[in-house]
Amino acid sequence: MRFTAEHHAFRKMVRDVVEREIAPHVDEWERAGSFPAHELFPKLGELGLLGLEYDPAYGGQGADHLFSVVLCEELHRSGCAGIPMAIGVQTMMATPSLHDFGSDELKRRFLEPAIRGTAVCSIAVTEPGAGSDVAGLRTRAVRDGDDWVINGSKLYITNGTQADWLCLLARTSDEGGHRGMSQIVVPTDTPGFAVSRKLDKLGNRSSDTAELFFEDVRVPVSNTIGTVGRGFQQQMSQFVVERMFAAYGAVGSCRHALDRTREYLRQRQAFGRPLAANQYVAFRLAELSAQVDLLQSHNYACAESYVDGEDTTRAATVAKLTAGRLLREVADTCLQFHGGMGYMEETWTSRFFRDSRLASIGGGADEVMLQVLARMDGFEA
Amino acid sequence: MRFTAEHHAFRKMVRDVVEREIAPHVDEWERAGSFPAHELFPKLGELGLLGLEYDPAYGGQGADHLFSVVLCEELHRSGCAGIPMAIGVQTMMATPSLHDFGSDELKRRFLEPAIRGTAVCSIAVTEPGAGSDVAGLRTRAVRDGDDWVINGSKLYITNGTQADWLCLLARTSDEGGHRGMSQIVVPTDTPGFAVSRKLDKLGNRSSDTAELFFEDVRVPVSNTIGTVGRGFQQQMSQFVVERMFAAYGAVGSCRHALDRTREYLRQRQAFGRPLAANQYVAFRLAELSAQVDLLQSHNYACAESYVDGEDTTRAATVAKLTAGRLLREVADTCLQFHGGMGYMEETWTSRFFRDSRLASIGGGADEVMLQVLARMDGFEA
Amino acid sequence: MRFTAEHHAFRKMVRDVVEREIAPHVDEWERAGSFPAHELFPKLGELGLLGLEYDPAYGGQGADHLFSVVLCEELHRSGCAGIPMAIGVQTMMATPSLHDFGSDELKRRFLEPAIRGTAVCSIAVTEPGAGSDVAGLRTRAVRDGDDWVINGSKLYITNGTQADWLCLLARTSDEGGHRGMSQIVVPTDTPGFAVSRKLDKLGNRSSDTAELFFEDVRVPVSNTIGTVGRGFQQQMSQFVVERMFAAYGAVGSCRHALDRTREYLRQRQAFGRPLAANQYVAFRLAELSAQVDLLQSHNYACAESYVDGEDTTRAATVAKLTAGRLLREVADTCLQFHGGMGYMEETWTSRFFRDSRLASIGGGADEVMLQVLARMDGFEA
Amino acid sequence: MRFTAEHHAFRKMVRDVVEREIAPHVDEWERAGSFPAHELFPKLGELGLLGLEYDPAYGGQGADHLFSVVLCEELHRSGCAGIPMAIGVQTMMATPSLHDFGSDELKRRFLEPAIRGTAVCSIAVTEPGAGSDVAGLRTRAVRDGDDWVINGSKLYITNGTQADWLCLLARTSDEGGHRGMSQIVVPTDTPGFAVSRKLDKLGNRSSDTAELFFEDVRVPVSNTIGTVGRGFQQQMSQFVVERMFAAYGAVGSCRHALDRTREYLRQRQAFGRPLAANQYVAFRLAELSAQVDLLQSHNYACAESYVDGEDTTRAATVAKLTAGRLLREVADTCLQFHGGMGYMEETWTSRFFRDSRLASIGGGADEVMLQVLARMDGFEA
Repeated sequence: MRFTAEHHAFRKMVRDVVEREIAPHVDEWERAGSFPAHELFPKLGELGLLGLEYDPAYGGQGADHLFSVVLCEELHRSGCAGIPMAIGVQTMMATPSLHDFGSDELKRRFLEPAIRGTAVCSIAVTEPGAGSDVAGLRTRAVRDGDDWVINGSKLYITNGTQADWLCLLARTSDEGGHRGMSQIVVPTDTPGFAVSRKLDKLGNRSSDTAELFFEDVRVPVSNTIGTVGRGFQQQMSQFVVERMFAAYGAVGSCRHALDRTREYLRQRQAFGRPLAANQYVAFRLAELSAQVDLLQSHNYACAESYVDGEDTTRAATVAKLTAGRLLREVADTCLQFHGGMGYMEETWTSRFFRDSRLASIGGGADEVMLQVLARMDGFEA
Repeated sequence: MRFTAEHHAFRKMVRDVVEREIAPHVDEWERAGSFPAHELFPKLGELGLLGLEYDPAYGGQGADHLFSVVLCEELHRSGCAGIPMAIGVQTMMATPSLHDFGSDELKRRFLEPAIRGTAVCSIAVTEPGAGSDVAGLRTRAVRDGDDWVINGSKLYITNGTQADWLCLLARTSDEGGHRGMSQIVVPTDTPGFAVSRKLDKLGNRSSDTAELFFEDVRVPVSNTIGTVGRGFQQQMSQFVVERMFAAYGAVGSCRHALDRTREYLRQRQAFGRPLAANQYVAFRLAELSAQVDLLQSHNYACAESYVDGEDTTRAATVAKLTAGRLLREVADTCLQFHGGMGYMEETWTSRFFRDSRLASIGGGADEVMLQVLARMDGFEA
Repeated sequence: MRFTAEHHAFRKMVRDVVEREIAPHVDEWERAGSFPAHELFPKLGELGLLGLEYDPAYGGQGADHLFSVVLCEELHRSGCAGIPMAIGVQTMMATPSLHDFGSDELKRRFLEPAIRGTAVCSIAVTEPGAGSDVAGLRTRAVRDGDDWVINGSKLYITNGTQADWLCLLARTSDEGGHRGMSQIVVPTDTPGFAVSRKLDKLGNRSSDTAELFFEDVRVPVSNTIGTVGRGFQQQMSQFVVERMFAAYGAVGSCRHALDRTREYLRQRQAFGRPLAANQYVAFRLAELSAQVDLLQSHNYACAESYVDGEDTTRAATVAKLTAGRLLREVADTCLQFHGGMGYMEETWTSRFFRDSRLASIGGGADEVMLQVLARMDGFEA
Repeated sequence: MRFTAEHHAFRKMVRDVVEREIAPHVDEWERAGSFPAHELFPKLGELGLLGLEYDPAYGGQGADHLFSVVLCEELHRSGCAGIPMAIGVQTMMATPSLHDFGSDELKRRFLEPAIRGTAVCSIAVTEPGAGSDVAGLRTRAVRDGDDWVINGSKLYITNGTQADWLCLLARTSDEGGHRGMSQIVVPTDTPGFAVSRKLDKLGNRSSDTAELFFEDVRVPVSNTIGTVGRGFQQQMSQFVVERMFAAYGAVGSCRHALDRTREYLRQRQAFGRPLAANQYVAFRLAELSAQVDLLQSHNYACAESYVDGEDTTRAATVAKLTAGRLLREVADTCLQFHGGMGYMEETWTSRFFRDSRLASIGGGADEVMLQVLARMDGFEA
């Protein structure tokens, strides 16, 4: 894995943008339970951050995947996980299928504005009562002439209250299980669509999360991304990118937190010496730091494989599982070593702890990752 | 350890009180960041819950310690940790020294109303810049005739915005370290006292926490609890009770959470069967349940020793360390197994997760417990 | 749990016996892969150690269960796990069913000499190909007139090369699963019985372990312990005692090891100070010591319940699971903190590490304990 | 990290050699507590395996470092850790300093035969009473004319009973701490040298380990490797390679063990289905397998850095720490899931468990790795 001078310059640019456009507003957005995507995204779009690897024909940068790695690592220095998540949904969860499988017309209408940041998008897969069990989803799109007529609901949808369009996964035939699903672009101004609830979460509060409701929502069949009936498979491949995104971000997040904690421990005195003089504390942090190194090595290897066009399902799954657990452990430890101060909302550790908890649930819970690995490895009889 | 029919009846009574007087208001109090102690405490006082083991001469019940064990376990079925903590401060942290070492007059004026619940009290030990390092505290009480003149500040004080009096630990001589401290009752209407800040915490939000400020606060020397210069030692013994309280409560809290999680897992379907049908999930919960059993056995052994008048420092320290870690693990696991729903603030797991995080910090951080044990065991050279 | 002066005196007596009769021979017996049960057991029998809780009518002491707790804790100061295991099989695994359910004649012939130590006995349940799955066992006893004719084999049988009789669990009817099994006393001088192999184990080497073979072994039906067809249930109850035994012993073993390690760490110098001056080391040992306290509290609570005649299945299962894991962690840590020296066979840590590994396998593997608990707790759907 | 076809062919060749020349003899060598280095090493030398990266001028292959990675991974399929360790000492611990810093004459006399396998060598650093504290070593070489006169002793020396020469680290001046040490080649036929003891270890039994004794051992000063007084620094850099070697080998070892365990679990039936059908078991193995992936990614990144001439101290330290812990956990779990059979010496799990225990001690204990990392990261005040 070799980062070039160009990647380093890009890292610096992202760090500046984060410091200038995001970090100063995070407290306010966290309190508000939402951020102004239609203000922030155009700024990021202008800098090319919303379509790094996408086709320049639609406004993308045509950059290599390592730029995405850098972007993910740096976004997590913003002091919250909500905004990186919202950006990630826009760039790495809701649009890859459209980019890879969508028709030219569909890309003109929906991908281009998403890359510019003038349109906000969501990925609408999870449903009430289904959770990680994607094969069990029940939202249906029934064909009526040249239209799909959609009924159902979706839950835990990031960017859901302000999205302009959704990348929806719906059941389009009566085949059960993994078959008979399709990915459909649904503009949110279509009649019958409603945001039924905005959800209040433990963390990632600056990112809005919604429950969505579809009642006879009618969109043209030409809004289908790729092949009718291949939605599940296309979505699974989109999920792999999501896992990598999560793992890249975790490294940035952990490093930033360990850096801040080190500074604190070297300054804070207790029992007549800095807290960092406690060997137990120093060793615990060294253990965590070692694990961040491991994850980073693995992330970079995974990114390289991805660049080489190899199947990264396994590598991404290992990375996601590890990232979720490590991030939580880092957050928990940083808070612990800040003592009473760490438990105060005014201290960064508190939000970090709340935010990080999502990492083992969102984008496929740890148990789903274990299931994937157990099957791949043949451990399951 | 033998609970009698009387203890069982008491358990039922407490459970009813919790369901009637506390649980229905918790959501509101959590949102408000405080609860009306002057409304709730008199109700509890009337039922005898605020002075279970105290001398009937001052309104106490003269009951045995096992009633306190029951109280702690049951309070944690209220759906939050903040109210049990507030009650615990009133009954097991701020008043034991006064009860054990205070003069009759001091007990008439301050203990009696605390037991009735008409006065709210706080324990004021921790300071900004000292944390768990009690020997390093800097608030001073300087003798001037028959008065102490107090200057300094205290941090993370539970019940701090509504307390009527404080059990203050202050330095009353120039001897360093553990020597030269005294416990002093400070009424909060004394001139020079101020609540400088109400603190916003990650959890335990229904319980108010404050920073307190003392500028030439003048109280009679007769407000001293016990012996001048023995404050540290008296406080240390009060801390032992606090640790026991924390451990008793953790068992109630964990059992309640595991019960609720079991119900959820048996009902919630994924991949065509209840979540509880996953062996991995069932085994993880069985592991945690086994650990709760161990802690409970240990708590009861500790309570018996306490009843027998034995030194329970070690047993209480082991219990507190274990309780903090176990509670966090239970909270983390219950949230995880609820998936996306578990991360929503509307689900109990979210508050439980935020509340439980305090358990390894408050009442002496885990690292302090380890230090105490390492010394006691002679592991430290 | 109250130990009386009598228990303390008994503890001292056992400690002396261990130091005199066992410890000096352990190295030799470990090398030999066996110990002379017919020499050692009569000595222990004479002291009453082989039938502490048994009916004096058959040579037992009629003592309370707490004496057994003391015995288990003290035996593990012998410097190996093999001899305590061999004694445990004789006293708490192979004979309880016989004592509780056997006919007077059977007890005269087999229990009395076992209590005296003149007869050595084994518990023969596990089979090749069945492991923890007791319900799946295939050794059959077919009735022929007044005799059982036994065919099959048994594996991992402690005391197996020198036993005079076995407490055998065999299938005595065609009912499947848990039904149709019986416990039968089989003298090892019966024709058709053979020790097919002596097994070489990772640890517990002073205790011989065998594979046994039964070919048309004929014993009278009157050798049946208790009720024909109730063997599984009787054995399950015998297993509960075995779990308790394992947990009691683990506490003695862990304490002894932590004591020895502390002494080493306080003396051994590295980097100019004793190893014990490393906070990381001291805290790790304090953590383990705290866990030993917890297990001991739980053991004592379990022993009390047993004395009170309560069902201790759950308590014993929790204790066994915890004991196995804790013992391994203690052994692993003690070895680690001895460094290179800890890896040498001449250092006690090495044998302790090998011996302790059995604790999570023998007497029901950890996974079996988890299964029992998951079912009891209703975590399994 | 790109392995070429050449690396793959090399892997196959090593695997064949292991299967042919090592694996069939392991049981015998383990029993004997030693292996015939003077028979085995010439065979390996002939195949070029003892000097992969060394200068062809002295018989080396001049191959890239990735060949060493492959060698380490494959050697651990031999069914023991002792032989790979013995080979590792010869090739990656005792000779790198000589290769990098030695005079041409020294290399002709000692490196060439080591690469051919006709001379066996050891690295002699550790001393009784010093352990991981290299700066505290006390063996002295005092200059007398053109000779060093050496007195002292060395402990835990691999290949120690059969070595032809040692790479000795000794104190050559009165400066304390890290200064004033030198690396000296000591032929073992020099008068005054003696193998004082052959040590009996928990595992790695096929590899002989010795205590060495030096009494007025006289060697020419020209036997000094590199610069007099720079021995500590040269040795530290040799230690970095040792850590990498340990980590590479651990991956090979873990994969091999997980493969064998999977096969067992898919075949072995309990409770009417293969053991692998237990989700708990499958998930645990998937977790471990994921961790092996992480370590391998990190190893390969470290190897690449090494190839690029970067300082790999931190990467190697992280790898070694992780490798030791992971290997032990894998060994422990594989044994556990084999149940009673896993505890038998006839089953591979038993030796694997004994062998793996060294991984967190040898080559610098885990605690030393943590110390190195804590310092590097600035966690220590």
